[in-house]
Amino acid sequence: MKKFLILTCFIFTSLTSFSQELFVNGDRLHKSLIHLSTYGKNAAGGSDRVAYSSHDVEARKFIKDLMEKAGLEVSVDFAGNLIGRKAGKNPSLKPISFGSHIDEVPNGGDYDGPVGSLGAIEVVQTLSENGLITDHPLEVIIFTNEEGGVVGSRAIVGALNQQALQVVSNAGVTQAEGIKLLGGDPNRISEIKRSPGDVAAFLELHIEQGGNLYNEKLDIGVVEGIVAIEWWEFTFKGKANHAGTTPMNLRKDPMLPASKLVLAVNEIVNSYEGRQVGTVGKIQAFPGAGNVIPGEVKLNVEVRDLSSEKIWKIYADLEQRAKQLAAEAGVELDIKHIEVASKPALADPMIREIIKSQAEKMGFSTKSLPSGAGHDAQEMARIAPMGMIFIPSKNGISHAPEEFSTKEDIANGINVLLHTILELDKKLK
Amino acid sequence: MKKFLILTCFIFTSLTSFSQELFVNGDRLHKSLIHLSTYGKNAAGGSDRVAYSSHDVEARKFIKDLMEKAGLEVSVDFAGNLIGRKAGKNPSLKPISFGSHIDEVPNGGDYDGPVGSLGAIEVVQTLSENGLITDHPLEVIIFTNEEGGVVGSRAIVGALNQQALQVVSNAGVTQAEGIKLLGGDPNRISEIKRSPGDVAAFLELHIEQGGNLYNEKLDIGVVEGIVAIEWWEFTFKGKANHAGTTPMNLRKDPMLPASKLVLAVNEIVNSYEGRQVGTVGKIQAFPGAGNVIPGEVKLNVEVRDLSSEKIWKIYADLEQRAKQLAAEAGVELDIKHIEVASKPALADPMIREIIKSQAEKMGFSTKSLPSGAGHDAQEMARIAPMGMIFIPSKNGISHAPEEFSTKEDIANGINVLLHTILELDKKLK
Repeated sequence: MKKFLILTCFIFTSLTSFSQELFVNGDRLHKSLIHLSTYGKNAAGGSDRVAYSSHDVEARKFIKDLMEKAGLEVSVDFAGNLIGRKAGKNPSLKPISFGSHIDEVPNGGDYDGPVGSLGAIEVVQTLSENGLITDHPLEVIIFTNEEGGVVGSRAIVGALNQQALQVVSNAGVTQAEGIKLLGGDPNRISEIKRSPGDVAAFLELHIEQGGNLYNEKLDIGVVEGIVAIEWWEFTFKGKANHAGTTPMNLRKDPMLPASKLVLAVNEIVNSYEGRQVGTVGKIQAFPGAGNVIPGEVKLNVEVRDLSSEKIWKIYADLEQRAKQLAAEAGVELDIKHIEVASKPALADPMIREIIKSQAEKMGFSTKSLPSGAGHDAQEMARIAPMGMIFIPSKNGISHAPEEFSTKEDIANGINVLLHTILELDKKLK
Repeated sequence: MKKFLILTCFIFTSLTSFSQELFVNGDRLHKSLIHLSTYGKNAAGGSDRVAYSSHDVEARKFIKDLMEKAGLEVSVDFAGNLIGRKAGKNPSLKPISFGSHIDEVPNGGDYDGPVGSLGAIEVVQTLSENGLITDHPLEVIIFTNEEGGVVGSRAIVGALNQQALQVVSNAGVTQAEGIKLLGGDPNRISEIKRSPGDVAAFLELHIEQGGNLYNEKLDIGVVEGIVAIEWWEFTFKGKANHAGTTPMNLRKDPMLPASKLVLAVNEIVNSYEGRQVGTVGKIQAFPGAGNVIPGEVKLNVEVRDLSSEKIWKIYADLEQRAKQLAAEAGVELDIKHIEVASKPALADPMIREIIKSQAEKMGFSTKSLPSGAGHDAQEMARIAPMGMIFIPSKNGISHAPEEFSTKEDIANGINVLLHTILELDKKLK
């Protein structure tokens, strides 16, 4: 079905629009993706290409080479970001930037990051071999250590402080040491800070990391924004007691209200319209012995949505319910808001519209949806109009060796990226 | 009210029955209890007299002295049990044995064990100073390391194997090493094994370790038996996934059926008549991160009752419910029965009747109830008709510095023990 769509769109749109007949080389992209996956491939079939590892360092040499072949002028900034520039016709314009990352979580997959990174290079390669020069300068960014805290993009927007640089990464070195391994200079990071206006637009192509597109058999996800995240720790405090000698009716067992709150999180989150999610990923009983009625049960509640207002409405419902459950059980309740400092990052409405219309022009089915996961794009949104393009990921899996997107879906996504850039190049003047 | 009962029973029963006018010396007992509490008292007001500690060793010297003063011939058996014997009129009869322990859990209280131990000695002291000699020999046993696995009583009934002797105790030494510190000989433990018929009856006085007597303002608990304990580990297996990118309707979150099972344990256990208890003391989500939908949730379910049959009926209900919950949630279920090897130990019906009638003769209110906690009596029940007497414990607290029973309640319990022994001495011929 999708192949048919590509062919038909190629045949028919080529008659009506010059740019629309331009397509990336899916086979070439696929070969690069396969080659990149060899850097850090482990025995279990997963990728151990964590940021700053020798695999990451080696893979970046391969990427730099690809960038240069695509006609980009490549440099490494002080944060270790690999940056490729291609001049535009109008030197007074700010660059249209796009890219992603190539580092992975430990035992991760081959698509989360590489699709957007290699896709960005393929866009430039396609333009170069077709002799096309945009008005805006183009900039491909392969960010430093996305999986370990969007380090490279935070550096670019000036949100990476000295404390963050001392955090030890998955490779066992601090961020500062790791950045040096990539050719950066942690002492000069403040010099690369960009401000609003410095970048014309930022685009990122990425696998969905969720099952929406895959399950609904859709081609392209038009990202509405990257959700805000809030965490709370709910603690129900009863009375620890002997599980054998304390009659059922004399217990103050915090497990009961805690269990009811788990169910309430699900019920309340689902009671709102929209795509918000709520999760209890962690629960612990204290002292946590099979023969002791717990004295305390702690559970972690996470709620994500594009709207902070909706998140706090959900919290208000949860707080009320938790108080009611604690009172009914005769136990105490303590709620702690945990700072995860993740604000929503909305995609630019015009860019969303361009992504959607370009995808539809090529005959792709689309869906507007939030990104539940964090991306470099969320940081870049602080300084530039931002857009993200999602492609389907098999069974919605990411961060695992089973991560997989088809060659065709990847090519579709890059074609949408390419034509979104060309359209933006026209409109952003 | 209780004081009034004691006085009236003293005045009136003394006119009708010789033995009924015999009472222990509550003040003397209280002084011994206070003195014993000084061995191992910590800064927090709790008792650190764990088995085999220097506090335990020193306290046993004090106890041995008390036993000798009461007219007992004292020895230490190969398991370190402190044993005091007083000959009866009929040397062909087997002894009526009674006693408890003086070791405590770390930061424990002053009553769990000491009440029954000092009470047993007080019974003999009272008989001796009144010149009373029973037909049966009497035997006071202060067991070794009750809190660390009823070690002394298991040795006496031949249930302590070599493996158990190598287990490290709360004092940091192995059971074998600890037994040596108490004057025993771990290599000769098999020599002290007794068989059914070797002991005429075994009695133990103990604080309730539950709130039944205290809350209902009752004087004496007539123990029906020591409950059986069964443990199961229920594991719900869903699909670990990204808590941000996985829509609510595409989740296979095992937290939901697990939480429902917690509530079902409470509901099902309460749906049966009787005093069974059921507890979820431990629950764990894997991987257990706030931003990951758990792939697995494990919970430990414990059920206790005097009837193993009822426990397994409850389990059958739980199993059925858990399967239903797993099916509804689309997750897998795995149930593992955990061997805790605790069979029910029923009290001897005749002894229960004697305890009840003797208590009532003295004007005490009584309640028949199971012991939800383990005791040396449960081991001794393997070789002898067994009976246990409970007295109220303030707020049902045990194994904590707040453990407390009134001087009066303790004296009441010892008086019931004394008269139960005298009545048994008559009946067991």
